[in-house]
Amino acid sequence: MVETACLFQQRCLRQNSVIRAQKGTTIVMPEQRVSYVYHLHEGIVGFFRTSATGREAVDYLIVPPHLIGLAGFAGMDRKESVYHLAEARAITPVTYCKTKREAVWDLLDDRGARSQIMEMICGTVFFLTAPAPLVSDLAPRIITILDALTRSIGTRDPNGRTVIPGITHGDIAAMSKTTRPTVSRVLERLEERGIIQIGRRNIVVVKPEALRHKPWS
Amino acid sequence: MVETACLFQQRCLRQNSVIRAQKGTTIVMPEQRVSYVYHLHEGIVGFFRTSATGREAVDYLIVPPHLIGLAGFAGMDRKESVYHLAEARAITPVTYCKTKREAVWDLLDDRGARSQIMEMICGTVFFLTAPAPLVSDLAPRIITILDALTRSIGTRDPNGRTVIPGITHGDIAAMSKTTRPTVSRVLERLEERGIIQIGRRNIVVVKPEALRHKPWS
Repeated sequence: MVETACLFQQRCLRQNSVIRAQKGTTIVMPEQRVSYVYHLHEGIVGFFRTSATGREAVDYLIVPPHLIGLAGFAGMDRKESVYHLAEARAITPVTYCKTKREAVWDLLDDRGARSQIMEMICGTVFFLTAPAPLVSDLAPRIITILDALTRSIGTRDPNGRTVIPGITHGDIAAMSKTTRPTVSRVLERLEERGIIQIGRRNIVVVKPEALRHKPWS
Repeated sequence: MVETACLFQQRCLRQNSVIRAQKGTTIVMPEQRVSYVYHLHEGIVGFFRTSATGREAVDYLIVPPHLIGLAGFAGMDRKESVYHLAEARAITPVTYCKTKREAVWDLLDDRGARSQIMEMICGTVFFLTAPAPLVSDLAPRIITILDALTRSIGTRDPNGRTVIPGITHGDIAAMSKTTRPTVSRVLERLEERGIIQIGRRNIVVVKPEALRHKPWS
């Protein structure tokens, strides 16, 4: 996926500036007019919604190299205003590229870039289906989020293991719409099975393939 | 949405034949090589998965005018084989158009068609997020499925109400991964609130707006 994103990223870099934002920064405000497409390079962005009871939670996650602002991208040639439906906020520190939607639209004229853009959009389609398994058990949801974290912000340590840095059990609880004790229980079970190691301020993923979303289980 | 699909549909019609299929017909087999993009004109297609326990259920629903076979569409210029991840099967009688993925790819050269194709793809993105509310309560899921049914196969009756024809409580149970009694309980509650009327072989939707998925509730 990283290799695929490269050409598009280079074109973005030429036309725009790369933006770095801290954890908690709002990237897209709710109801904001969609004039830009956001191409995520690093980190995790959550689409937050507020429920009827006023409780806020992540609706879905976006990890690199996916695009934010698809609705605006799609409605490119339409007269009506297209609005974002939720607030997109950085869950971890992020790097992204803000591109005028017209510029992304024009990139589709180039068949090389077209392939990469289509892959990103369709990758987003499949990613979105992943974090919400159609089961009431919370464990698959937490495992899917761990998989998303591993793929998006995981880094290799000297022992060849993948480390998810700076993520607390509370962060995962907020992302998976559950409580911290539930997250801890699931993580402890994964640790017992030798899939992860829970550190002080990080999670070491020993067997990343064990977290991978399996469409045919 | 229907008006938007028109040009693309006309182009599809010129290049291909329109296919009609009965309820239960498999449109895409799992692991089948993706050489086509399926453009759904009428009816509902489900993506079915089999769980570890051997129980089969719908993973998500596709309603008109969305596309099936996005993965293959996206991986257009890549060498590796791209496979479908699940079986796409008609939940209701369907009408669709099977188009060589290269033909859809070429349509992106036309800026009018491009707009419509992008809208369909991004519509699919948002549709996919709808049928799986991130809550353990099954009622929102069943209501979302009813909304999808209303928008896709609902027809106006002489009294100006929308009728969902030929859908049993068992069909909805299969789509929402729950039991028939749970579906009946939710439908009865909707009937008490004057939102629907449960008929012998149909469901009459009196207040379609009450079923609409609300991103900001």
